[in-house]
Amino acid sequence: MKTNLKKIGVLTSGGDAPGMNAAIRAVVRACVFYDKECVGIYRGYQGLVEGDFTPLGARSVKNIINKGGTFLKSARSKDFMTPEGREKAFHHLKDNEIDALIVIGGDGTFTGASVFNEEFDFPIVGIPGTIDNDINGTDFTIGYDTALNTVVEAIDKIRDTANSHNRLFLVEVMGRNAGDIALNAGIGAGAEEILIPEENLGKDRLVESLSKSRKSGKTSSIVVVSEGDQIGKNIFELAQYIESNLNDYEVRVTVLGHIQRGGSPSCYDRVLASRLGVGAVDVLLANKKDVMVGVKHKKIVVTSFKEAIEGTNEIDWDLLKVADIISI
Amino acid sequence: MKTNLKKIGVLTSGGDAPGMNAAIRAVVRACVFYDKECVGIYRGYQGLVEGDFTPLGARSVKNIINKGGTFLKSARSKDFMTPEGREKAFHHLKDNEIDALIVIGGDGTFTGASVFNEEFDFPIVGIPGTIDNDINGTDFTIGYDTALNTVVEAIDKIRDTANSHNRLFLVEVMGRNAGDIALNAGIGAGAEEILIPEENLGKDRLVESLSKSRKSGKTSSIVVVSEGDQIGKNIFELAQYIESNLNDYEVRVTVLGHIQRGGSPSCYDRVLASRLGVGAVDVLLANKKDVMVGVKHKKIVVTSFKEAIEGTNEIDWDLLKVADIISI
Amino acid sequence: MKTNLKKIGVLTSGGDAPGMNAAIRAVVRACVFYDKECVGIYRGYQGLVEGDFTPLGARSVKNIINKGGTFLKSARSKDFMTPEGREKAFHHLKDNEIDALIVIGGDGTFTGASVFNEEFDFPIVGIPGTIDNDINGTDFTIGYDTALNTVVEAIDKIRDTANSHNRLFLVEVMGRNAGDIALNAGIGAGAEEILIPEENLGKDRLVESLSKSRKSGKTSSIVVVSEGDQIGKNIFELAQYIESNLNDYEVRVTVLGHIQRGGSPSCYDRVLASRLGVGAVDVLLANKKDVMVGVKHKKIVVTSFKEAIEGTNEIDWDLLKVADIISI
Amino acid sequence: MKTNLKKIGVLTSGGDAPGMNAAIRAVVRACVFYDKECVGIYRGYQGLVEGDFTPLGARSVKNIINKGGTFLKSARSKDFMTPEGREKAFHHLKDNEIDALIVIGGDGTFTGASVFNEEFDFPIVGIPGTIDNDINGTDFTIGYDTALNTVVEAIDKIRDTANSHNRLFLVEVMGRNAGDIALNAGIGAGAEEILIPEENLGKDRLVESLSKSRKSGKTSSIVVVSEGDQIGKNIFELAQYIESNLNDYEVRVTVLGHIQRGGSPSCYDRVLASRLGVGAVDVLLANKKDVMVGVKHKKIVVTSFKEAIEGTNEIDWDLLKVADIISI
Repeated sequence: MKTNLKKIGVLTSGGDAPGMNAAIRAVVRACVFYDKECVGIYRGYQGLVEGDFTPLGARSVKNIINKGGTFLKSARSKDFMTPEGREKAFHHLKDNEIDALIVIGGDGTFTGASVFNEEFDFPIVGIPGTIDNDINGTDFTIGYDTALNTVVEAIDKIRDTANSHNRLFLVEVMGRNAGDIALNAGIGAGAEEILIPEENLGKDRLVESLSKSRKSGKTSSIVVVSEGDQIGKNIFELAQYIESNLNDYEVRVTVLGHIQRGGSPSCYDRVLASRLGVGAVDVLLANKKDVMVGVKHKKIVVTSFKEAIEGTNEIDWDLLKVADIISI
Repeated sequence: MKTNLKKIGVLTSGGDAPGMNAAIRAVVRACVFYDKECVGIYRGYQGLVEGDFTPLGARSVKNIINKGGTFLKSARSKDFMTPEGREKAFHHLKDNEIDALIVIGGDGTFTGASVFNEEFDFPIVGIPGTIDNDINGTDFTIGYDTALNTVVEAIDKIRDTANSHNRLFLVEVMGRNAGDIALNAGIGAGAEEILIPEENLGKDRLVESLSKSRKSGKTSSIVVVSEGDQIGKNIFELAQYIESNLNDYEVRVTVLGHIQRGGSPSCYDRVLASRLGVGAVDVLLANKKDVMVGVKHKKIVVTSFKEAIEGTNEIDWDLLKVADIISI
Repeated sequence: MKTNLKKIGVLTSGGDAPGMNAAIRAVVRACVFYDKECVGIYRGYQGLVEGDFTPLGARSVKNIINKGGTFLKSARSKDFMTPEGREKAFHHLKDNEIDALIVIGGDGTFTGASVFNEEFDFPIVGIPGTIDNDINGTDFTIGYDTALNTVVEAIDKIRDTANSHNRLFLVEVMGRNAGDIALNAGIGAGAEEILIPEENLGKDRLVESLSKSRKSGKTSSIVVVSEGDQIGKNIFELAQYIESNLNDYEVRVTVLGHIQRGGSPSCYDRVLASRLGVGAVDVLLANKKDVMVGVKHKKIVVTSFKEAIEGTNEIDWDLLKVADIISI
Repeated sequence: MKTNLKKIGVLTSGGDAPGMNAAIRAVVRACVFYDKECVGIYRGYQGLVEGDFTPLGARSVKNIINKGGTFLKSARSKDFMTPEGREKAFHHLKDNEIDALIVIGGDGTFTGASVFNEEFDFPIVGIPGTIDNDINGTDFTIGYDTALNTVVEAIDKIRDTANSHNRLFLVEVMGRNAGDIALNAGIGAGAEEILIPEENLGKDRLVESLSKSRKSGKTSSIVVVSEGDQIGKNIFELAQYIESNLNDYEVRVTVLGHIQRGGSPSCYDRVLASRLGVGAVDVLLANKKDVMVGVKHKKIVVTSFKEAIEGTNEIDWDLLKVADIISI
């Protein structure tokens, strides 16, 4: 590898996701492995603007692979959205002799990186870290698998009560405009119905379907609702609508909320993050920039930031068919 | 033991709690051990009114000790609140030659049992099964320990995000009018503040205290709020109040909801439920009735239904002092 | 779909794996969806030889998606290895008007299916269910992802003690002749060294490497050892060898054992099993046989039993490189 | 409180236990609350002999309440067993102006403390931290409740396989000479038999009992074996003995090992540790020494080190009776 890179900065930005620490750890240790220096930047782009840096060595990242969140912390930075802020950021990088940057986050993070690259021609490589799995160019984003397990474990608990009381539960899950969490966790949790923004089933078809399944002998039901779904947006109203249109169904609502972002990462997310962290350093050392590293079919692949953000991440329609069949 | 009891009925009533299945299993197997018959009654008092019964043997209750909820199901019964309903219930018991009843639940369950006992002089013994720990005559109720672990695990996840973003989280937990869950889980989760109905700290003292702890160097905070606390009742309003009275604190709300009622019971709850299930049969065979069995200092104790319900379950003020000290 | 199939049998065979119940559930419900009958066969091929059958409907498989093990039970059948045994099995299938079979298991299961198919030209489709991930024609086998999480969670606990006491732990994991569990869980658990049969590092290089990492500042270490590794086979001897060749390293051994086969399946395994269960029915209805269904790149693919078993499932050498880098 | 204490040292010693970090945290914060200084001593008595100290403030112990192990590390110290070693320890304490010591551990820890107190009249208060629950003067030791949950969760997984294959599993659990873990976790896991050193059932009665329960219809069984039990000591021999004396029972052995010492502490252990940490400081400030603080019936109680170690911690015979009844 021919490269003049000597010092690499790393930051996490946007909503935190389980496995971000594992990704930082892999970046740092790959730097050590290749005899490069590594610098941690606190609070995402805000720390870049403020020059809030810390040197990182192999032992700085011990015992963090199993921790949720990000020890470099994350933040949304208004300053970095201004040319003045980015100017400051660039000077802090220069002053600290940082030659390249690895940013871990989602689409907002990559948009910022792309703009910065254009303005200063500064080498940046991205790593997809978000529970929403709404990034192109990778089979999975870091944190998504853990979030699925968290949701499924939570609904397993709720089902105990649903079964004991013959109740219907509406469970709202995260995912922004992507239905991946709802669809996969819905299947995993054995949900009767799954509401996702890509499909938008509608209230009436939902009530019809629930009515049918009750007649077929089901005494309790779980409906998983994606936060991005049109009728899911007002989940408490939806609950009332169902109660007033179905007889003898007590309806309860649970909004799972922020437990979905935290927790010790699953093995899958730890391995993915380790692979991507090393991959990002490899890609930088190969003189690539303005790209994101992803994993497809167990291989590292590279996608431009533009493509990673812009392309639409289609829902898996085959899987939606499976969901329909097994909730019979 | 001199007794004429030959057949014992068992039911679960009110909100479900982890460990109810373990208690049913212990009742059934104690019946088998003492050569008594055991009958399961579905859906609490409603199943009693409707005669929805099933015979239970030692093998009927295999592999349920680790399951949340209650396989006999639970319900709130309006019919049983009427004299006609209880009349029907009594006749179903007579028709099925059931001589005595074991009811697993909380204060509503014991109130019903007490009334029925008065009207028909029918032997009933109660087992305290509720996550709220708001019953007198026992150190812990079945399900309480599991609920504490569920809450603490959930807040551990939320803390990952709170730390990563320097945020303040308000987390609402169950417990009705008792602050036990909030106080214990709050300590366990390392909460900065705990709002319980027994204390009613008030908005202003809360804001003052949070302001002080931010100044002392805390960058993120968890506030655990009991659902029964006066200012906790409007947790979203409380969040707004804090945001408008504290600078640079992003406030988020999570209502943990029904995940607190479910899940595989902890070892403590399984052992407690096993002890109480056997204890309830022992007490019935000793010809006692109109009482609840509890465990105090690892020994089975007996309390009248009246006392179990009426007495106030004081908060542990020593523990509240501990909470203040360790959140410094 | 043109097919004469009316009744489909399903069985689980070989070592149990988390997600087998989810796969059975999907098979049964896909049968209901396509208006086919479904029959469960207990205890794998042994139940086939003995005619130990039970009809299965949509409600027979409720509330099992989250349960480990297999409710149809599993066994290794000596009888089915004899022509007489298979003859009996064939007659039971005919007598019960079962037209086709879905078998869930690993290579032993598929070998049996292949032989039976040859002898009786009976349609069989396989589903890969084993924690070992040692089957060709699918990215993952059912149960593998759950086993990885179980191993990683166990090692997270062991690391608490390793760190507290500055100790070295050897942890033996399952996987038969495949190092996939060791490699992935080793990375996930942050292991310093990973011993897999595909590499066979050897005692001396292990000691050398541990000595180097201690010098670099590591005070505790986890070594993950695959049960199929040459020097791992005698893990207690290995521990003694290390202790006698390294100064001031206390070495402890933990053989994780059967906890790796059980537990509630991960979301990934539940979704995979659901997809494969429906896929197997689809494939049968498309008149294919003597094949296994797998999932590659989120799509159902079909592989002959012969290929599924015979081909070598290569270790992921890229990932082994990652493991080396991040354990620096 | 009248006291001249200005600076308190804290250490953890012996086998680590979940909740030790929570106890250290409570000690430190109680010191801050009472305006005392706090000093952490690394690696138990060995760090005392070597003067391996670190100042601790309220923020030094943030985010550790949920971590297993002990961040102060633990060790067994040969040096502290010699008069010279203790002499050195005493001088380090004096040089650092440490006025009193809080030691967290088990009987070995308290024995050392007692000797040191006698020789130097130095104020020491103990906190019971061990998973074995073999200390007098407290209802529970820190870490015991967590270990019970770990064991029960592990056996829940093993039972999945036991059920699927109709097998018998022998599961060895920790506890040294105390059967508390085996008895409670055995009940919690629904074990058919529990072997504890306090009872010593013997091989023949075990085989007899297993034979009887198989005849009663049980197809799989879990036997929990305490490591201190006479026949449990050779658990692999025991497995062979059972196999050769019972027909058609496949027997498997799992030694749970060190996973029992680690893991995130349960809510119970976190609250207990918090209470005891504050209690230990309170007791020191009240000028007591040579004692251990414990919790009985939710109140802090004080016991001399001698009594804490010497007295026999009786097994709960009532509970053993319950175990017999519910395994019917």
